[in-house]
Amino acid sequence: MARKDRKLLGIEMDRVSAEGYKDLPASGVVVVLDNIRSAYNVGSIFRTCDAFKVDRLFLCGICAQPPSAEIHKTALGAECSVPWEYAPETLPVIERLRAEGYETVCVEQTVHSVKLDTFVPAEGKRYAVVLGNEVDGVQQEIVDVCDFSLEIPQFGSKHSLNVSVAAGVVLWHLRLRG
Amino acid sequence: MARKDRKLLGIEMDRVSAEGYKDLPASGVVVVLDNIRSAYNVGSIFRTCDAFKVDRLFLCGICAQPPSAEIHKTALGAECSVPWEYAPETLPVIERLRAEGYETVCVEQTVHSVKLDTFVPAEGKRYAVVLGNEVDGVQQEIVDVCDFSLEIPQFGSKHSLNVSVAAGVVLWHLRLRG
Repeated sequence: MARKDRKLLGIEMDRVSAEGYKDLPASGVVVVLDNIRSAYNVGSIFRTCDAFKVDRLFLCGICAQPPSAEIHKTALGAECSVPWEYAPETLPVIERLRAEGYETVCVEQTVHSVKLDTFVPAEGKRYAVVLGNEVDGVQQEIVDVCDFSLEIPQFGSKHSLNVSVAAGVVLWHLRLRG
Repeated sequence: MARKDRKLLGIEMDRVSAEGYKDLPASGVVVVLDNIRSAYNVGSIFRTCDAFKVDRLFLCGICAQPPSAEIHKTALGAECSVPWEYAPETLPVIERLRAEGYETVCVEQTVHSVKLDTFVPAEGKRYAVVLGNEVDGVQQEIVDVCDFSLEIPQFGSKHSLNVSVAAGVVLWHLRLRG
C-alpha cells in the first residue's frame, strides 16, 4: 500500500493575487494567438499562461477579447492576471517582438520544424510562441517570418492536438530550462 | 529574415489509420479518468491520448462514454483509435492496474507530491496516470492508493490547469523518456 498523502487546499498553495501577477519574475516567454476561432480556447490558454507565468498574451485577428463570458468560463479569472493586447493583424506583432529581441517560434508541423523533444530552450533567451487557428494552423505568412517552427511529435492516428493542449505542452517544455 | 519554411499537409504526416493504432508499439502508459464531468474534456483527452499513443483509456464513474456527440466534437475520431473501457468505480481499476504491474500516479497537488520537473520516468516502467474531476480533482481515496502524486508546478495566480491541458503536459513529459 502506498504512503498516505493528502490533497492540498487552495489556501495552502500560496499563489499571488491577480494584481500581484505583474510583480512576479519574468519568464521571458510571451504568447501570440493567430486567429483562434474559439473563445473557450482563448480562455483556456489564458489559464495556462497564468500557470506558467507567461509575460504577455497577444490576441490577433478574429480572437475574442476580454471581457467575454466564454473567455471567463475557461480562463476562470486568468484574463485579469495575464497582461494582454489585441492586434487586428498578427504580422506586425511578430515583427515588433523580433525587434524587441524575442526568438519567434511558431507551433507547426513544417518541412524544417524542430521536434519538441530535441529542443532545449537557451538560458537567458526570450521566446515568443505563436499558436494558430484550430483548422488552418498558423498562417503561412507568419511561418515565413518566424525564426523556426516547433513540432510536437505525435505517434497515433490524428494529425494535431487541440490548440490549448498544444499551448500547455510547449509552455511546460519552455519552463524546463535553467 | 528567417529561412523559408512550408507547413506540411496532413497526407505528408504519415499517420496510421484508426484501425492500425492497436498495432503501434506500446508506450507503456495508460490513463484513468476519475469522474470527469465534461464530455468535451473526455473527448479532448481522447485526442491527446491518440497523439502520445496511450495504450488504454479508462473512463470511470460519471465520465461520458462513446458514442457521444460531445466526445466526438473534441476527439475528432480519436475515440475510435484509442482502446477504452468504462468502469462505474475508479478504485477497482487502480487496483487492477497495480496488479498488472503499473506504477499508479495521480496528477494532484498534495503534501508529498513530486514536482513534474524533477520527475524522470524510469525506462521500462509502465505508468497509469490518473486525472480527476474538474472541481474536486482526484478523489482522496484514490490519492491514498496511488503510488505517488505528480504535481505540475504553477507560477501564477490560479490554482490549477484545465484537466485536458494537464493531461497533455503530463503525457508529453512521459514521452520524453528513453
